[in-house]
Amino acid sequence: MHSIITLTKEQFTLGHDIFSLTIALMGAAALFFFFSRDRVLPRFRTALLLAGISAALGCYHYIQIFHSWNEAFEFAGNSYIVSGHLFHETYRSLNWLLAMPLLLVAFVLILARSKDLTISLIRRLVNASIVMIAFGYFGKMAIESHAVMVQWVWWFLGMIPFVYIMMLLWRLLSPAFENQSACAHKLIKQARNLILISWSFYPLATLLGLLHVGASATGLVVFNIGYSLADIAAIGGLGLYITWIAMANSEENS
Amino acid sequence: MHSIITLTKEQFTLGHDIFSLTIALMGAAALFFFFSRDRVLPRFRTALLLAGISAALGCYHYIQIFHSWNEAFEFAGNSYIVSGHLFHETYRSLNWLLAMPLLLVAFVLILARSKDLTISLIRRLVNASIVMIAFGYFGKMAIESHAVMVQWVWWFLGMIPFVYIMMLLWRLLSPAFENQSACAHKLIKQARNLILISWSFYPLATLLGLLHVGASATGLVVFNIGYSLADIAAIGGLGLYITWIAMANSEENS
Repeated sequence: MHSIITLTKEQFTLGHDIFSLTIALMGAAALFFFFSRDRVLPRFRTALLLAGISAALGCYHYIQIFHSWNEAFEFAGNSYIVSGHLFHETYRSLNWLLAMPLLLVAFVLILARSKDLTISLIRRLVNASIVMIAFGYFGKMAIESHAVMVQWVWWFLGMIPFVYIMMLLWRLLSPAFENQSACAHKLIKQARNLILISWSFYPLATLLGLLHVGASATGLVVFNIGYSLADIAAIGGLGLYITWIAMANSEENS
Repeated sequence: MHSIITLTKEQFTLGHDIFSLTIALMGAAALFFFFSRDRVLPRFRTALLLAGISAALGCYHYIQIFHSWNEAFEFAGNSYIVSGHLFHETYRSLNWLLAMPLLLVAFVLILARSKDLTISLIRRLVNASIVMIAFGYFGKMAIESHAVMVQWVWWFLGMIPFVYIMMLLWRLLSPAFENQSACAHKLIKQARNLILISWSFYPLATLLGLLHVGASATGLVVFNIGYSLADIAAIGGLGLYITWIAMANSEENS
């Protein structure tokens, strides 16, 4: 897609800067989650550890995306032209493949009190998220080969686990609400909405791409800003809610 | 072997992505083992530390493999051709040379209760694993010089310590089982099977190479995916079992 694109200096710099900002935010989030572990009860510490690892994974993958962006374009007098190196967008799929199951596990770990419900929820959420992200990865690979029909098939297949995960979060999480303090209750609802909104950006952006919206230099930059913000919300933001919920429940119980 | 190979964009990207995924997983595993140390009894903490260091070593070596892969091929219009730089597969031997003795020590440390048995087991396992990996390294070096007969000799020599290690794990570990909780007992058996299966990939892949199976672009990519998955299982997977066993035994005793 991007192989025909010439970027202005400003467009290239905007992409470059948003990726650097995301590296910094993810790294900062990882440090916050890791070092907040001793501020919560021991049984919440694994959840915070997983949130920290997810943010560290986000930091790593955005370092790779940042370097790939810088390699994919070269400065030619007044604008940036493609250098011949691919811009590896598959890093985002790899990032989600690892970070999202970990965050879903962390989210369930701070909510569910019964061990059976926890294990059943984790198993279903992790499997569904891996299937969803794998379909997205194959869709990205199909973009490289310009097979539009195949991309539509992967998009529809990916929507099935997406809807399934949202159903699980909206219906099966409800019993967990009863044991929560008023403060934690509010935070959990906000966290769930954050998951829905931030996750929705991916299928939406893919859909726009399939409808040939934004197939330009501006489109490339805008989409990449969108993906970065969605990742910051879905990983750093959700991790922050997990930390807050753990802190609220720790105060309640200590 | 790879010097005659041209890769498609998808084949190159698949190799590139599996190496990046392995870097990320090994790094995530290292963080998990390091930060889980405060969740187990003090006497298990050295084992978790060693598991964390092994995963960190895996992370480092896959960063090197990743860069070597990217350097070994260059984009030429529609496919990737060899650039003239070697793809340094010997990193895997160097990784195993350091990570495997550490993991075997960690595994014995969380199991054996008698000090004499621990020291005797560690000494034998570490020496045998170093000899095994050294033979594998010399075998890889022989591949570069196309001396098929020499490769067979190294393969057979490497199988002797391999079988010896498996015998030690199956026979000498049994006394350690008696002191374990039911949960830990099950985990130890699974961990031992994981070692057998993940370690077996190396001699099996070498054997297939000697029989000229997979000497193509697809073969190169498939073998590298296999090696990466075997390393993830043998290092990250075994470290996870060590952490789980330590956690199970800590709950039991606390």
